[in-house]
Amino acid sequence: MTEDNSIFIGTKPFMNYVTGVVMQFTTKDAEEVIVKARGKFISRAVDVAEVACKRFLQNNVAIRDIKIDSEEFTNKEGRQVRVSIIELKLGRQ
Amino acid sequence: MTEDNSIFIGTKPFMNYVTGVVMQFTTKDAEEVIVKARGKFISRAVDVAEVACKRFLQNNVAIRDIKIDSEEFTNKEGRQVRVSIIELKLGRQ
Repeated sequence: MTEDNSIFIGTKPFMNYVTGVVMQFTTKDAEEVIVKARGKFISRAVDVAEVACKRFLQNNVAIRDIKIDSEEFTNKEGRQVRVSIIELKLGRQ
Repeated sequence: MTEDNSIFIGTKPFMNYVTGVVMQFTTKDAEEVIVKARGKFISRAVDVAEVACKRFLQNNVAIRDIKIDSEEFTNKEGRQVRVSIIELKLGRQ
């Protein structure tokens, strides 16, 4: 799997991401797509995965694996902060 | 496992939830704790799980399993809406 199959969730309109996932499986014939997000976009990544799988790719694509992690770093005010990360792996059934 | 070991993430201060998780493992000697959330609180649930495991219960407790799902229902305006759900299972290592 190449990194091309990853979709990083941010501030674009919600359906852009859903369409992105669906297109990977339909027009690009991907075997797997990874939906990734950090911080507050994690909820959105779960929504994108659920809508793509259950509304658009029903019976064809499902969640295969979910990973969470976090990274600690020093922010511009010099404080240690932790940001969470999620990776949702979607694959053909 | 009883439902008492579930912690539902909402609008309370962040550290209340982290302390709740930590206390289940320390003072209540739980084997497993499930952190649950819906919709926009999903990001927060991931943060709670990460902070509890990595900062407070390091080397003792880890994520065992993550499930996502969604429910469709009709809102008060009569529209079909979908809300995502996450369940993060934390357990002793």
